[in-house]
Amino acid sequence: MALIVQKYGGTSVGSVERIKAVAERVVNTARDGHSVVVVVSAMSGETDKLIALAGQIAARPAEREMDMLLSSGERVTSALTAMAVNALGQKAVSFTGRQAGIITDKVHTKARIEKINGDRITKALKDGYVVVIAGFQGVTEGATDVTTLGRGGSDLSAVAIAAAVKADLCEIYTDVDGVYTTDPNIVPQARKLAKISYEEMLELASLGAKVLQTRSVEFAMKYNVPVVVRSSFNNNSGTLVAEEDKDMENVVVSGIAYDKNQTKITVVDVPDKPGIAARLFNAIASANIVIDMIVQNISSDGKSADISFTVPRTDAKTAKEVAETVAGEMGAGRVDLRDDISKVSVVGVGMRTHSGVAARMFQALAEHNINIFMISTSEIKVSCIIDLKYTELSVRVLHDIFGLAQ
Amino acid sequence: MALIVQKYGGTSVGSVERIKAVAERVVNTARDGHSVVVVVSAMSGETDKLIALAGQIAARPAEREMDMLLSSGERVTSALTAMAVNALGQKAVSFTGRQAGIITDKVHTKARIEKINGDRITKALKDGYVVVIAGFQGVTEGATDVTTLGRGGSDLSAVAIAAAVKADLCEIYTDVDGVYTTDPNIVPQARKLAKISYEEMLELASLGAKVLQTRSVEFAMKYNVPVVVRSSFNNNSGTLVAEEDKDMENVVVSGIAYDKNQTKITVVDVPDKPGIAARLFNAIASANIVIDMIVQNISSDGKSADISFTVPRTDAKTAKEVAETVAGEMGAGRVDLRDDISKVSVVGVGMRTHSGVAARMFQALAEHNINIFMISTSEIKVSCIIDLKYTELSVRVLHDIFGLAQ
Repeated sequence: MALIVQKYGGTSVGSVERIKAVAERVVNTARDGHSVVVVVSAMSGETDKLIALAGQIAARPAEREMDMLLSSGERVTSALTAMAVNALGQKAVSFTGRQAGIITDKVHTKARIEKINGDRITKALKDGYVVVIAGFQGVTEGATDVTTLGRGGSDLSAVAIAAAVKADLCEIYTDVDGVYTTDPNIVPQARKLAKISYEEMLELASLGAKVLQTRSVEFAMKYNVPVVVRSSFNNNSGTLVAEEDKDMENVVVSGIAYDKNQTKITVVDVPDKPGIAARLFNAIASANIVIDMIVQNISSDGKSADISFTVPRTDAKTAKEVAETVAGEMGAGRVDLRDDISKVSVVGVGMRTHSGVAARMFQALAEHNINIFMISTSEIKVSCIIDLKYTELSVRVLHDIFGLAQ
Repeated sequence: MALIVQKYGGTSVGSVERIKAVAERVVNTARDGHSVVVVVSAMSGETDKLIALAGQIAARPAEREMDMLLSSGERVTSALTAMAVNALGQKAVSFTGRQAGIITDKVHTKARIEKINGDRITKALKDGYVVVIAGFQGVTEGATDVTTLGRGGSDLSAVAIAAAVKADLCEIYTDVDGVYTTDPNIVPQARKLAKISYEEMLELASLGAKVLQTRSVEFAMKYNVPVVVRSSFNNNSGTLVAEEDKDMENVVVSGIAYDKNQTKITVVDVPDKPGIAARLFNAIASANIVIDMIVQNISSDGKSADISFTVPRTDAKTAKEVAETVAGEMGAGRVDLRDDISKVSVVGVGMRTHSGVAARMFQALAEHNINIFMISTSEIKVSCIIDLKYTELSVRVLHDIFGLAQ
């Protein structure tokens, strides 16, 4: 008699047959006596199709209009899924983000959830309905404008709704069996993890593991929502993402992640004056672009520096323009953009108590003549920016030396 | 310096190129100094595609969910059109039916507009925006649920918005040059009318002329909104639909309409007792089905009757089921359904002062051996139900004998 939120991604609802399969799983869960809230993505390919249409109409479509456009995909799936559940004899109702009470800030295309008023969901569950909610979207305060939560935002919708209605479990259904030690397409020996901590998942997600959207993991950690990542194509048990426990600490490295969606931007000959970096990164933050790594190299004469940073590839064009404006104002040199790079990372909560992981990583890469351009570390991960063409090789090498196949 | 509502139908926004062409027309209108509200349909084919998806998922999808599904098509077009207008350097913003303040009753898939709160539209116009509104949709009081207005509902959205914001003109852009004396595909000599009265248009629309949705004409007549029907593919002047004037009365017949979307249902052996017909038609009205013609034939012994009526083909299945239930309860015989029929009509305000139109119509059909199954008349029209296969022949014969080609 639990309250379960089930989120189905684009491939899980990618066709009429898939939607019917989802409906069966939902109805089976309901017939087991559980209350079920379903969160759906757009059918796979739909969002890309809409983005392509917008791209043919305007070089830089207004973000408010992009949200109006893109939010339609999830509405379609939510209605179709509710119909499919109804067709199996189980009452169901679809809600838009607005109808589900999801209030966000006003940052179009990347809105943050500010609060969720779950009353309408709770009422519908009490009346015996399966509630099917369009993921990825919300509205600004007063329901003035429609917003979207950014790529992968339906994961966030699901976790936030689970927190708001105090669900016992949030299941994220996707086209893979769970969270792996690394991408099985690159390393066939990659192993599915039975359990992983929020923090490790956060690093893996933000490092490009694609299984769960970063902000959804942050949200799950903050509100302590147990999340299970599993496949909608079979009945395998998936991976539980939850609070760290004793078992996890004994594993030094739990996964290897890579991210090919990064661009490195370098501002050369930046005068060595206080406040310059702040000015540059404030300007970029004002454009709502999240910077990942930053490295500053002082020139040999000590009078100027090169500042390099990485941003998601989709923001690279804007970031470069902002950087060029600031560079012009402060008398710096040219701005270079390099996108034939990738980021490779090793992650594990065990690193907190086991030293030497970074050194072993650098050594292994060096042995294969893989150059490291930038390095970034946290308590539980080490990341390196390398040449794009060495991505797969690096992942295989690291998966091997940290013994993840066992 | 007028306030103009422009509505663009599915073919007018059927591709990226078409949307750009619409944007140019809109921007030209705005640059001429007018305030412009644009109402858009879904891109042609989109609504049918969504209906087909729903049909594959459920035999009878819940109507609330159909509205959630279908309302997405117009949202897409409204966002794309606002982007296209923006791209030409003119400020534009898209509104959903809800954001445009369109409040309807709760009859899903055929909702009626109850009121429009045009404040947000007026504010945006004042701020210099072209306002692009998703047609065909609204919300119930309190913005609880999304509703749609039925096929052709975007015309109604446009006219109702024009009335609400007190527009000087409502232009309905479509893929034909205006309202013709009859369908030019059937009669190549058909003539475009420069002007037509609301009442004639109402008859032509409800009789299947397809150019303007019936309820939109009723609304235009009620609030005296001048409507121009014209093509978005050229700059021809179109047809003005407005109040009747002296000129119009001199024309006996202004157009010939036909409707192939009718089904005839017959309840046989209905006991001849008072209240029987009322019971039948109340039951059908309760299913929100609009009946067009009704004919009752008393049997030769005077003890029972056959009751025939026509309904739109989409409602035929439901209407037959309702009729069968009622027939069973009141001891009537079987219920027959016949859909190889059509309705052919002659329309003209001049009929009020000129007699003999019906007689000439029946005579002309008889001369071509075309059997008449049912007849219905009003002050300004005569309609006959005939065999489907004679539709085109009838239209040509009637267009000819009433001299409409001159």
